Amino acid sequence: MQPQQLQLIFDEKRGMENNSTMPKKWGFRGNSEFKPEPQTTIRGAITLLESNLNQSDNRPVIPMAHSEPSAFPCFNTTEIAADAIADAVRSTKFNGHSPTIGILPARRAVAEYLSQDLPYKLSPDDVFLTMGCKQAAQGILQVLAGSKSNILLPKPGFPYFGYFAQLYNLEVRYFDLLPEKDWEVDLDSLVAVADENTVAMLIINPGNPCANVFTYQHLKQVAETAKKLGILVLSDEVYGHLTFGENPFVPMGVFGSITPVITLGSISKRWIVPGWRMGWLVTHDTNGILKEHGIIESIKGFLDASTEPPTFIQGALPDILSKTKEDFFSKIVNLIKEAANSCYEGIKDVPGLTCPTKPEGSMCLMAKLDLSVFDGIKDDLDFCLKLAKEESVVILPGICVGYESWLRITFAIDLSSLQDGIKRLKAFCERHSKKA
Amino acid sequence: MQPQQLQLIFDEKRGMENNSTMPKKWGFRGNSEFKPEPQTTIRGAITLLESNLNQSDNRPVIPMAHSEPSAFPCFNTTEIAADAIADAVRSTKFNGHSPTIGILPARRAVAEYLSQDLPYKLSPDDVFLTMGCKQAAQGILQVLAGSKSNILLPKPGFPYFGYFAQLYNLEVRYFDLLPEKDWEVDLDSLVAVADENTVAMLIINPGNPCANVFTYQHLKQVAETAKKLGILVLSDEVYGHLTFGENPFVPMGVFGSITPVITLGSISKRWIVPGWRMGWLVTHDTNGILKEHGIIESIKGFLDASTEPPTFIQGALPDILSKTKEDFFSKIVNLIKEAANSCYEGIKDVPGLTCPTKPEGSMCLMAKLDLSVFDGIKDDLDFCLKLAKEESVVILPGICVGYESWLRITFAIDLSSLQDGIKRLKAFCERHSKKA
Repeated sequence: MQPQQLQLIFDEKRGMENNSTMPKKWGFRGNSEFKPEPQTTIRGAITLLESNLNQSDNRPVIPMAHSEPSAFPCFNTTEIAADAIADAVRSTKFNGHSPTIGILPARRAVAEYLSQDLPYKLSPDDVFLTMGCKQAAQGILQVLAGSKSNILLPKPGFPYFGYFAQLYNLEVRYFDLLPEKDWEVDLDSLVAVADENTVAMLIINPGNPCANVFTYQHLKQVAETAKKLGILVLSDEVYGHLTFGENPFVPMGVFGSITPVITLGSISKRWIVPGWRMGWLVTHDTNGILKEHGIIESIKGFLDASTEPPTFIQGALPDILSKTKEDFFSKIVNLIKEAANSCYEGIKDVPGLTCPTKPEGSMCLMAKLDLSVFDGIKDDLDFCLKLAKEESVVILPGICVGYESWLRITFAIDLSSLQDGIKRLKAFCERHSKKA
Repeated sequence: MQPQQLQLIFDEKRGMENNSTMPKKWGFRGNSEFKPEPQTTIRGAITLLESNLNQSDNRPVIPMAHSEPSAFPCFNTTEIAADAIADAVRSTKFNGHSPTIGILPARRAVAEYLSQDLPYKLSPDDVFLTMGCKQAAQGILQVLAGSKSNILLPKPGFPYFGYFAQLYNLEVRYFDLLPEKDWEVDLDSLVAVADENTVAMLIINPGNPCANVFTYQHLKQVAETAKKLGILVLSDEVYGHLTFGENPFVPMGVFGSITPVITLGSISKRWIVPGWRMGWLVTHDTNGILKEHGIIESIKGFLDASTEPPTFIQGALPDILSKTKEDFFSKIVNLIKEAANSCYEGIKDVPGLTCPTKPEGSMCLMAKLDLSVFDGIKDDLDFCLKLAKEESVVILPGICVGYESWLRITFAIDLSSLQDGIKRLKAFCERHSKKA
């Protein structure tokens, strides 16, 4: 039987046109209305931008869209971490399945690691191991989704929260961060969009994409506002400890006695190993509200229907968390700080771009685009597509993080590449300026 | 504010009783009607059985429920595999994110590995890397789920297919395997339950839980039946190559030109490393039907919303697949074969138990329970609960794999433990026999 005949059988069975490409019966489940535009996810936007690169430009591409410095040798992770993995896999002790919540020694290690910065001790039972922060985010958004629920997300923010919320039909409402107030949460705008169906709010601290670090006092206000609204605070702390400004990193879990807090973290950023996919979801709930409301059981239910991190990576986690030397952490923070400052200072000389505040943490910052300065640049996406094509510099358009007419610029790459990138960015902006 | 007061705020906001444990707004999403009974998932059943163990029995517990021999030193994986992981993680080349479908060298390695047993060459584009077979199964069931779709699953089978199908509201219909015909598919029962909304059927080869291995001729009949029904064949081949009887392992992909075939595999079983979570989903579709029908795009959509295996494990995969020595494979197969035969012969002497056919592959077999032989044993679950309590032997009740009044017995453990287990099983059955 020829392929075409077989095709016909399939089509007859389903009563479909021969040119149909996505029969409903075989379609991807979930919210079938939900088809994200490429530029609204980071991977999608980067793919789009990279497809616009000029192949005949012999200069190296400058990757300032991904917050992933691991490609640069100066950002190699500590050998202690790689050795811990090698030792764990060779021990033969971690070849079998792990429980879906993670093995106890690894959960205990995360509890101890995080408790160093908390006014109370976490228990291993507060810790759920996940495949990086992404699975943790996916899990909690799936848990929180309900027919009428909504969640409050920051604008600008990190797109995969919105992506997963939409995928699970969890309504998203946005509140503002205030660029003129060091990207603090606009608590009035937060309260204004909340209603009786609001179940949670998200903060990202240190800030992605804003490079800000919330103060203790502001975080306390956030917790108190959430308490008044009767909602939990979800805190993405994947950039925890990657701070280099005045404000120290304060974990949101400090305020778990005010309102229930769920933090998301991983070794991806501090250890520069995002590909290791080792993360955690941690409940900070000294009043037992999450347990009372079935959230803990729901998290376990999600994890039972998911896949846990490889057992030997979990097995390596206690050594990774406890044996890594302070000099590795400070080396990384210093490299990022130097890059952040260089980026911030460099942008001052770029026509049409302004950065409202000096970066204090994380790996990327937001720069405002004054489109009126340029000739023939339609919007931030257009800017980034042309920049990729003409200068082989890949920068995320603000639309990707919910913030049109801005750019998200990753500074955590090696310094000479960064300086080259900023130079090209400047040349591009000068060339497209109306004055030019 | 006291915890109780805060609790009240939460409850007032939601209009809930203080003793509610699972408010609808915060409930686990998916099919909210779906709450599997513990004994219908393998993890659940094992937890149930283990909670019934007699803590004052000083004998070691014999684990004949999990198909996971990695806990026994004789089943340690090859050092080549552990070295490949250690080399990959130390290379610093695999610290960054991977594409959601997996890195090219790893997909190419899987394509080459599987093509050795196929009449055509797979392309890396046919291969999608997953977190073990579980995520591959989850993905394809999610892709196939549609409002009216149904899938045909074998009985007995492996419970997580039914579990994921229910979770995604994909209707499940069961067809029979025939114990008297070496557990071949009852094609008549298959055709009888299929209708125009059937999208796929599943086979598990080598058989879990039946330890059978399908012949070339039978697999061809399966493909031809599927073609007539206009459905694809999903083939779980996680036990591929773990065969030790007359029938060699024939991958279902051989028949990908008859009807579209999707195979699921991993290194978990052949390399005895289920905790490494390295698997794949592979499309065998020489006529391009899956692409035409949007299945390939849907698989990519699922993977975009999932988490990929850690990059360095993918980085190690080419070496693991190509450098592992034949003597490791044959050592493992011989150990399992010896255990299988010992189990099969041992059961012959156990009153009330019969094994219809000699095991030929995988790591567990099905033994029929003649309840009329026993006094005071209600059903297979009751049998297994009492066996755990009295003899510290953990065996899965047939109900767990959709087959009441049978037992699923894992033989892939070290031989002395197995023989001890069978001895205790025999003592238990003799003690509970009516004659006794």
